[in-house]
Amino acid sequence: MAHTGELRAKFEMALQEHIVSLQTPLELVKPMVYSLNGGGKRLRPLLLLTALNIKDPKLVEKGLKTSIALEYIHTYSLIHDDLPAMDNDDMRRGQPTSHIKFDEATAILAGDALETDAFGIIANDDQLSEEKRLQLILELSFAAGSNGMVAGQLYDINSDGQKITLEELKQIHLLKTGYLFMFAVKAAAIISGADSKEKDLLNQFGNHYGVAYQIHNDLKDVVNIGMDQDSLLHSDEANGKTTYPTLLGIDGAKEALLAEIDACHRCLKILELESKLNYQGLAQFLKPLSIEK
Amino acid sequence: MAHTGELRAKFEMALQEHIVSLQTPLELVKPMVYSLNGGGKRLRPLLLLTALNIKDPKLVEKGLKTSIALEYIHTYSLIHDDLPAMDNDDMRRGQPTSHIKFDEATAILAGDALETDAFGIIANDDQLSEEKRLQLILELSFAAGSNGMVAGQLYDINSDGQKITLEELKQIHLLKTGYLFMFAVKAAAIISGADSKEKDLLNQFGNHYGVAYQIHNDLKDVVNIGMDQDSLLHSDEANGKTTYPTLLGIDGAKEALLAEIDACHRCLKILELESKLNYQGLAQFLKPLSIEK
Repeated sequence: MAHTGELRAKFEMALQEHIVSLQTPLELVKPMVYSLNGGGKRLRPLLLLTALNIKDPKLVEKGLKTSIALEYIHTYSLIHDDLPAMDNDDMRRGQPTSHIKFDEATAILAGDALETDAFGIIANDDQLSEEKRLQLILELSFAAGSNGMVAGQLYDINSDGQKITLEELKQIHLLKTGYLFMFAVKAAAIISGADSKEKDLLNQFGNHYGVAYQIHNDLKDVVNIGMDQDSLLHSDEANGKTTYPTLLGIDGAKEALLAEIDACHRCLKILELESKLNYQGLAQFLKPLSIEK
Repeated sequence: MAHTGELRAKFEMALQEHIVSLQTPLELVKPMVYSLNGGGKRLRPLLLLTALNIKDPKLVEKGLKTSIALEYIHTYSLIHDDLPAMDNDDMRRGQPTSHIKFDEATAILAGDALETDAFGIIANDDQLSEEKRLQLILELSFAAGSNGMVAGQLYDINSDGQKITLEELKQIHLLKTGYLFMFAVKAAAIISGADSKEKDLLNQFGNHYGVAYQIHNDLKDVVNIGMDQDSLLHSDEANGKTTYPTLLGIDGAKEALLAEIDACHRCLKILELESKLNYQGLAQFLKPLSIEK
């Protein structure tokens, strides 16, 4: 069985081969590639490829194009989220964001190009049956579109400075982040032809993983800068952003994170029982999310 | 045979039924529908439906979902083109543009939602075979993506204030406008299962139609405001925008327009000879483009 390092190498090679084959005008391919190769962890493609690898290492090749399309969608969303009218971020992963490196118009268009091209990449993937390609396109459009990621980003922006409940916060993150993680593992189920029970369990794993990922993200911000409960609440008032720690406190958020990680492990255990496959390979994605109690 | 008025009514009804069926959160569906129902002429959907109607009136129903997806893509492109970082237009068709009516973040996201959802609409259209749906998605992604419309918009913005040649101007418009018109008629060929010769001729018609449409647009602006050759050149210097009239003069642009319309008519004549179908039904789209000599 391939390790994550090998899967990552396979993905990077496939992505770079794909980029080299593009006929896109240089002015546009430059900002697209700048963000595609901006140092991302490739979490979503790796979730997809790892789940496929567990089913059958031979299936990994068949998931490469869909993984690239998924990274396209994730990358477009980061470019647009960073725009001045949205989160207004100048830096991402230690480098200038697209609209700083190029300009705002170029950043909007590079995002639009990645967003539209993603669907062509899947439609053109003749390693998969027509039925599977259509299922993947439908699921990706749903996860990323007006019922998924885009709606989550709008809710997130509109909730700035508003008091929101834990349920609302969960809903925002489910839409904004969770759906794309769920697509990653669901895509593996589609490509491998998994039965509906296995698909459902993978989907549940993706869901809990997405929430865990978000709580960990929120916690990392406040724990890293050494905030205590008081300064945390003060900072919340200052930037008006509701997070898991501001709603639950640091200890409460840590408990919630552990509960989500436990739920992930439960999914993997049932997956293993149901499929007789070593689904523990997905547990490695949970390790970076654990945090000191 | 249905008239354009009937086809338009069918399209509007299908679009409104589609809108009513959306599960999208209200905050997002509002700006999407505001722009979808912003008084557009529905040119692209009508080109598609008219070409289908010529082949066989029974095919019109089968083209409705693709027409809606096409109008989604066109509408998203207008919302993003109007943004402050792009063309910075406050008004379109006599109404405030999306970022004025709502705000910039909402406009970007409404565009993104339309862009992504378009592909799901086609993928989900069970009136068409899986093969046809995939072909349509592939062609639409190509026409609208990094090799088509998005590249055209980037070239267009980058050419502001630059001296460009007639060839460069033609290339910009082919990408920015032409490819989507070409998709409209090509989609009809895909849906109706036309042979490759008919498909090619429809494509050529779409290409010439797109150029004619653009020259007419450029001419309308200067003829309507009663500009003569001198003030035209002066205004060109002022806003730094190269158009057909600034490159060819008003009379030269009129001649170029007539030549494109002639080319369209020639395509229709050959289409009629090849297919024995009354392709003159497409000639009605040329009438609004004729201009006083």
